[in-house]
Amino acid sequence: MKIIVDAMGGDLGPLEMVKGSIEAVNELNTNIILVGNEDIIRDELKKYTYPEDKVEILNADDIITNDEDPSLAIRRKKNSSMVVGAKALADGLGDGFLSAGSTGALLASGIFIVKRIEGIHRSPLSVLYPTLKGFSLLLDAGANVDCKPEYLYQFALMGSIYMEKVMGITKPTIGLLNIGTEKGKGNILTKDTYAILEESKLNFIGNIEGRDLPAGKADVIVTDGFAGNIALKLTEGMAISTFSLLKEELMKNTRTKLGAAILKPEFKNMKNRLDYREYGGAPLLGIKKPIVKAHGSSDAYAIKNGIKQLVKFIENDVIKIIEANIHIENNND
Amino acid sequence: MKIIVDAMGGDLGPLEMVKGSIEAVNELNTNIILVGNEDIIRDELKKYTYPEDKVEILNADDIITNDEDPSLAIRRKKNSSMVVGAKALADGLGDGFLSAGSTGALLASGIFIVKRIEGIHRSPLSVLYPTLKGFSLLLDAGANVDCKPEYLYQFALMGSIYMEKVMGITKPTIGLLNIGTEKGKGNILTKDTYAILEESKLNFIGNIEGRDLPAGKADVIVTDGFAGNIALKLTEGMAISTFSLLKEELMKNTRTKLGAAILKPEFKNMKNRLDYREYGGAPLLGIKKPIVKAHGSSDAYAIKNGIKQLVKFIENDVIKIIEANIHIENNND
Repeated sequence: MKIIVDAMGGDLGPLEMVKGSIEAVNELNTNIILVGNEDIIRDELKKYTYPEDKVEILNADDIITNDEDPSLAIRRKKNSSMVVGAKALADGLGDGFLSAGSTGALLASGIFIVKRIEGIHRSPLSVLYPTLKGFSLLLDAGANVDCKPEYLYQFALMGSIYMEKVMGITKPTIGLLNIGTEKGKGNILTKDTYAILEESKLNFIGNIEGRDLPAGKADVIVTDGFAGNIALKLTEGMAISTFSLLKEELMKNTRTKLGAAILKPEFKNMKNRLDYREYGGAPLLGIKKPIVKAHGSSDAYAIKNGIKQLVKFIENDVIKIIEANIHIENNND
Repeated sequence: MKIIVDAMGGDLGPLEMVKGSIEAVNELNTNIILVGNEDIIRDELKKYTYPEDKVEILNADDIITNDEDPSLAIRRKKNSSMVVGAKALADGLGDGFLSAGSTGALLASGIFIVKRIEGIHRSPLSVLYPTLKGFSLLLDAGANVDCKPEYLYQFALMGSIYMEKVMGITKPTIGLLNIGTEKGKGNILTKDTYAILEESKLNFIGNIEGRDLPAGKADVIVTDGFAGNIALKLTEGMAISTFSLLKEELMKNTRTKLGAAILKPEFKNMKNRLDYREYGGAPLLGIKKPIVKAHGSSDAYAIKNGIKQLVKFIENDVIKIIEANIHIENNND
């Protein structure tokens, strides 16, 4: 198995990308193709000991930044690490692609270079969302802001397969994000989606509300990219503002500072548990080959975990299973 | 000034409703009409000392519960405290109406009994949303799940007037809830709404993201009732799950229990600051007369504060100002 890694993407740059990749080579016994500026990558590689036949470099001098328009960037920067990496995946040089670069550009690379699975209407952004029970898969977290019921059904199907095959959850529960739990609640999109999900073979548990997200009521949370993006960023904002409030309360006087000192490890632990960036990479579902987006601020540890996730994505034939399910439905139509 | 109070609504029933009303009579010098079962109300009133000429009772034997379909309930239960109260408001027996009963039924009573202001397309549910800076007004928090740009513009206008006249904020900032801050981001609804808000005389500061809500980036947060409801309930869920996590961390061992004991008042304070129910009632904007929805779990203190808010709503001519603004625009069309 060979994993293609965008060595230039991510806020921390090649240092952490290369380090994490080498850790994956040594610990997981995977082959890696590092895509990016060859000189920089070679310099980084010198720091480590690893089986040299397991690591290749694919030169790409350009970098796509987070500020660029995704579709324009992938058309103009043909020699960027992201485009070269995605092309390598499309051409079969590797089995999966990991990038910590621009989410939009990676999604565009997936759709336009690697292409969507036949029969898939839209590719959602899927994010592992931290809950009191562990995590849920939230999709779409922002790729498709105007959705149709059949898109949401496919998101549910793909999310269910991913959670079962990659995250090891048996018969994942599917919840439809809505404004009330009763059937018949919601806007036109959710009402129509409810009807499709109810008729499907998925383990659909009905509507779930905003308050059910952090509680972990469903393994897969299905929603359009507008509501999903707002929910994801609000979750992040609530975690940040809660800690900001906490800090304010704890700096009030000597007594509170003493309490804060005593509980420092617990506060740190809480902070990590509330941080969705801790929970691994985001799979790009609906694309013909496995792609995982690592968070922009990923360090070597996160990159290694992202590669691990990608390995499971590949080994468990997630894409073949999605294709088979979509194929069956299209034949039934 | 005379305030009509639904004495039967709310989880805590007549006890707290009557107590809060009497506190308002004594402290704010308002007149009150208590609507509900006369015998029960009389029994409650016996507990207090107050100027008797300032308190009236309007009998209504029925109660609308939270489980009932709002539109059906207000049509079938003509003798419910909510319908009788709303009719009293429509007929001019009082100047404003407060209820802690079913939100949906109160909204339906507003729309069908008191009626919408001429030219107003839809009535949003408006909620005071707690932030690091204080609070914002979030609207629509769930009344209209499928919206048009012109509805959202009117929500912004009404929210701005309310925040200025009732909450005392000069030139309130208006933020459009969206998936990115740049102009051009979003779904069809937010893109079209952006264009209208940009051209308006409102203090529009552009798009705001989910993470900006708890930070308090805008005084008025405009959104459709679907995204707004999800945001509101997710905020509630995050506060609950954060405290659940905190509790788990603090019960680990003797050291953490000691720290928890030291910081008890601060944790309590934080909990209150994160609880949106602490921040007063929700005005029903776009209705011909002032209506405020108090939270279902309101105690006497919250009811008194709700009445106070309603008094400002009335005194500051919020409805006349909304009417004048809508009128000017319709003439300009």
